[in-house]
Amino acid sequence: MPIPIILDCDPGHDDTFAILLAAGSDRIDLLAVTTVAGNQVVEKSTLNARRVLSLAKVHGVPVAQGHGAPLLGGTGHGEGDRYGGGDVHGDSGLDGWEFDEPTVPQDPRHAVELMAQVLTAAPEPVTIVAVGPQTNVAALLTTAPHLKPAIKEIVCMAGSTTRGNFLPYSEANVLFDPEAAAVVLAAGVPITYVGLNVTHQALVTRDVLARISAVPRLGDVCEALLRFRSGAYDGIWQMPDPPLHDPVAVALLIDPDLVRCRRANVVVEVHGQYTRGATVIDLLGVTERAPNAEVALELDAPRFWDLLVGTLEGLA
Amino acid sequence: MPIPIILDCDPGHDDTFAILLAAGSDRIDLLAVTTVAGNQVVEKSTLNARRVLSLAKVHGVPVAQGHGAPLLGGTGHGEGDRYGGGDVHGDSGLDGWEFDEPTVPQDPRHAVELMAQVLTAAPEPVTIVAVGPQTNVAALLTTAPHLKPAIKEIVCMAGSTTRGNFLPYSEANVLFDPEAAAVVLAAGVPITYVGLNVTHQALVTRDVLARISAVPRLGDVCEALLRFRSGAYDGIWQMPDPPLHDPVAVALLIDPDLVRCRRANVVVEVHGQYTRGATVIDLLGVTERAPNAEVALELDAPRFWDLLVGTLEGLA
Amino acid sequence: MPIPIILDCDPGHDDTFAILLAAGSDRIDLLAVTTVAGNQVVEKSTLNARRVLSLAKVHGVPVAQGHGAPLLGGTGHGEGDRYGGGDVHGDSGLDGWEFDEPTVPQDPRHAVELMAQVLTAAPEPVTIVAVGPQTNVAALLTTAPHLKPAIKEIVCMAGSTTRGNFLPYSEANVLFDPEAAAVVLAAGVPITYVGLNVTHQALVTRDVLARISAVPRLGDVCEALLRFRSGAYDGIWQMPDPPLHDPVAVALLIDPDLVRCRRANVVVEVHGQYTRGATVIDLLGVTERAPNAEVALELDAPRFWDLLVGTLEGLA
Amino acid sequence: MPIPIILDCDPGHDDTFAILLAAGSDRIDLLAVTTVAGNQVVEKSTLNARRVLSLAKVHGVPVAQGHGAPLLGGTGHGEGDRYGGGDVHGDSGLDGWEFDEPTVPQDPRHAVELMAQVLTAAPEPVTIVAVGPQTNVAALLTTAPHLKPAIKEIVCMAGSTTRGNFLPYSEANVLFDPEAAAVVLAAGVPITYVGLNVTHQALVTRDVLARISAVPRLGDVCEALLRFRSGAYDGIWQMPDPPLHDPVAVALLIDPDLVRCRRANVVVEVHGQYTRGATVIDLLGVTERAPNAEVALELDAPRFWDLLVGTLEGLA
Ligand SMILES: [Ca+2]
Ligand SMILES: [Ca+2]
Ligand SMILES: [Ca+2]
Ligand SMILES: [Ca+2]
Repeated sequence: MPIPIILDCDPGHDDTFAILLAAGSDRIDLLAVTTVAGNQVVEKSTLNARRVLSLAKVHGVPVAQGHGAPLLGGTGHGEGDRYGGGDVHGDSGLDGWEFDEPTVPQDPRHAVELMAQVLTAAPEPVTIVAVGPQTNVAALLTTAPHLKPAIKEIVCMAGSTTRGNFLPYSEANVLFDPEAAAVVLAAGVPITYVGLNVTHQALVTRDVLARISAVPRLGDVCEALLRFRSGAYDGIWQMPDPPLHDPVAVALLIDPDLVRCRRANVVVEVHGQYTRGATVIDLLGVTERAPNAEVALELDAPRFWDLLVGTLEGLA
Repeated sequence: MPIPIILDCDPGHDDTFAILLAAGSDRIDLLAVTTVAGNQVVEKSTLNARRVLSLAKVHGVPVAQGHGAPLLGGTGHGEGDRYGGGDVHGDSGLDGWEFDEPTVPQDPRHAVELMAQVLTAAPEPVTIVAVGPQTNVAALLTTAPHLKPAIKEIVCMAGSTTRGNFLPYSEANVLFDPEAAAVVLAAGVPITYVGLNVTHQALVTRDVLARISAVPRLGDVCEALLRFRSGAYDGIWQMPDPPLHDPVAVALLIDPDLVRCRRANVVVEVHGQYTRGATVIDLLGVTERAPNAEVALELDAPRFWDLLVGTLEGLA
Repeated sequence: MPIPIILDCDPGHDDTFAILLAAGSDRIDLLAVTTVAGNQVVEKSTLNARRVLSLAKVHGVPVAQGHGAPLLGGTGHGEGDRYGGGDVHGDSGLDGWEFDEPTVPQDPRHAVELMAQVLTAAPEPVTIVAVGPQTNVAALLTTAPHLKPAIKEIVCMAGSTTRGNFLPYSEANVLFDPEAAAVVLAAGVPITYVGLNVTHQALVTRDVLARISAVPRLGDVCEALLRFRSGAYDGIWQMPDPPLHDPVAVALLIDPDLVRCRRANVVVEVHGQYTRGATVIDLLGVTERAPNAEVALELDAPRFWDLLVGTLEGLA
Repeated sequence: MPIPIILDCDPGHDDTFAILLAAGSDRIDLLAVTTVAGNQVVEKSTLNARRVLSLAKVHGVPVAQGHGAPLLGGTGHGEGDRYGGGDVHGDSGLDGWEFDEPTVPQDPRHAVELMAQVLTAAPEPVTIVAVGPQTNVAALLTTAPHLKPAIKEIVCMAGSTTRGNFLPYSEANVLFDPEAAAVVLAAGVPITYVGLNVTHQALVTRDVLARISAVPRLGDVCEALLRFRSGAYDGIWQMPDPPLHDPVAVALLIDPDLVRCRRANVVVEVHGQYTRGATVIDLLGVTERAPNAEVALELDAPRFWDLLVGTLEGLA
């Protein structure tokens, strides 16, 4: 039985691979793709989601646009951070390839409305995979708390057990909307946290790039996108072998053995002067706070790349 | 031409008089009543709104239930405050009178959905009068920012230019959901702030109580509710002549000359240790922040009571 | 028996009258004057203290210079405040009069060292009157906690039960060094708080100005200083009859009946975004926090002016 | 020419080795040992410092007691942390060995007074090595800013570039007094930060323990102390090979090649809800903040242990 999911994203180069993985895996039943502001403004997220699904020739999955700003408004930029989505993903949010006009349409509903209707209609609880800022998911939980039992789990690409990226202790998705992340963590729904500590084990090395580039039909696009990402990561974080965060959150649903997790308490700092958006993860129980999430710690990287490349080949 | 309004409330003794004033005035076109958690849990807010409209024999105005918790979750209680809604409004949220089963039904829609549909359908911009925590209004602004032009103004019973009530510098509606209040203030929609500084000029003195009690048909209920309020206010704040906050926000729409306002910057403290929920209102321009609201400063109390008593008599 | 005091100040126009009152009253035994940065840099505070004592022909009271910056460093300016000491007290910290070279010397000791030695030497507990930022007093309490029993009381001109001045809820002395004020309040020493709520009852009206101007020898200087203050207050706060904060803190030692106080809990907000430096005073017991200070609420203004004018005449 | 230093500490097992290293190295001229509350109350810190110097037969170095509480008062415990000094260092602050009555006396001066006098008297700038909470150092910088030019450098065992220990992102010395750490970092004096990221490379493995235990005369004491530490670290952090933080800060003065550093901006979070005491270290320049410290990143552990064991042998 494939796992029914809603994929909430802000494509984005790594989101692209999460979409392709979710769309291409027969272990996943992709019920909807919803978009949010993050790497770029939400209109670009939506256009890019449609582009990627069109490229993958996936029709019939509704794509709905969601929040264009953090839950409390504002720009999503932390005080003092030098980089934003445009620096990492380019002006289009998906720089590196000229896409054709997408054939997949935009659903007229708001992302949160679509989410609620999908959850209401589903015969079994649905997993939400959130690989952008968690604004839509938080709004869903806040406005429709009665739908919580219809959510099996929320898998978040978010945070870090070690250092962040956009600020020393803050990861981009959480920094963009810390209050949304806090709402999700406090909702009482099962949560899995896939943070930078584990996604930085999914590095696009020269070998990985060669394998992905060799995939028929999709290889050229994927290579171009990953080369753009390599340049951006090298410039900002001195990482020419860039991490591919978002597909890890999908991959662990397909193959739970890919990732080793530990139950721990996760909270988000929303009040700090220098630490806004930090995820404070108590791996050793040094605080009094009870565990509220599964926290991904270790990735079987070779197996992850095998899964991703194999799925891309299946889509070709 | 009557002013079309949506009344968002958490009845509540003073909300009761706001509902009656809005329902009874021919200067107001009451399009919807929406409810929110605040003085009591939202289910009691909704029941009480239906009770009050039934009492006033107002049928045809939809009553929809909204958020049952603050925007970011939690209980809405500030760190260290000793009092909550139950202390002020009793266990029912409207203690002091045994109401009959209401004849006005609950609309099946969520408050935010009803608000959005009313705004979409209205031929002219609509005023939102928010006399409870601003959770519903904030959710509306966040989820449907394209509807902002359909909002003429948001009149908030909220905050204070001087001291608060539930905490030394925090008023109950804002303290219950400071983030929601911050979202509303930052939304770029015209705002009027009716705070404790001005509602504490609307005191139910012995004379006022006598006049209200003498209103045919409604006098007994109103008197019972106000006597309960007097006891609660005397116990907590040593104010046996209790203020009647919420109807002031409706009254200034009916008769703008009732209240003197000043344009000023209003922001909400969400990060403080002792000041969470404080509204920081820069009446003299000592900060660099630009004015973003009309702030009510002075009430013509005799004229306010004349308006209220007259409207109650009209409903009798 | 006169009350032995140390006067810690940042003269400053109103500090000037506190010094003159303390120096001229036979109810006060002025053991030391210590200076702190606040209205101006500390070197100007020190020079001005020496000028005022020289003017008053008070020799033998040591004047020692203390902290030149808040306890945690920085400038003492709140985020977003438009005004600083220079706007209120002029470039010299005491604009309006050209003083002669002072005849009173500067003591070579640091203010905190002088305070500690005075406390150690005193045969009975000494009252500290702090009418500037409380940096010196906090440093004393932190470095020499064993001297707390030698402090009878700390009377602070600080904070407000209502609105602030430099920020909507923050008074200048506390805003300049909120952490110092927090240290003092938490020290477990008896505290009296004389805030803006009561010092704004000590307004230099035309009548008051005339009486002070008529004092022999000192009248001209005092008038010039007060006229400067009137201009500054009118420009910033639209108060042409300016308040004279600091002497109220000395006056209530001389004549306790001048001021009505209430025991209450006072805490200082150090973490807020818009409320840094706010004194949160729980007059009605709405929080769980126990009273820790006597808070001045009401001033017998005529009696205060009589005391001040009479003392000035005694110094003439 | 040996490097003149003041060692400010809270012994403490690892402080013990810092003292022994500083006392035993001919590259270091130990001018003073000052003590602070941290691992235990300050009286125990002082007694333990005297015990360790007596054990090492080091006479003539003054030992002065400093602050017994953080700069702003309080207990130094973070909100929600489960462990404190007593859990790690035992009731005596140096559990594991029964020391004789120390022969080294306590200097009657306050630590800050001693520091100021040492700095004033020194013919060349002096290095301060702070391996406890930085309360004394901050008080020195605040009260005597004119002595900054007499400080060559402040080497702090403090913080972390990765995770903390007492809280997920907070290291014990900084968590105990975050404001003091902030004062030190903002003082404009050259700073070197030796954090957990590098001291966790100085692990007392079985081999290291064997080498230290074999040192004549001192081996038995050292072994007993390290065995206690192993048990404590295993219980709390699951690290039976415990790190020896404090001597690393002394070692890099003796042999700068031991440690690889990078210039970076370091700030301390004092306002966070979950991150109080976190050191936010911008290794990659993702913020706009300019570098203000040398941050230790990598330790040559074998060389470090050679230095430590060799120095202990020299003291034997
Ligand atoms: Ca993403
Ligand atoms: Ca209400
Ligand atoms: Ca002053
Ligand atoms: Ca230590």
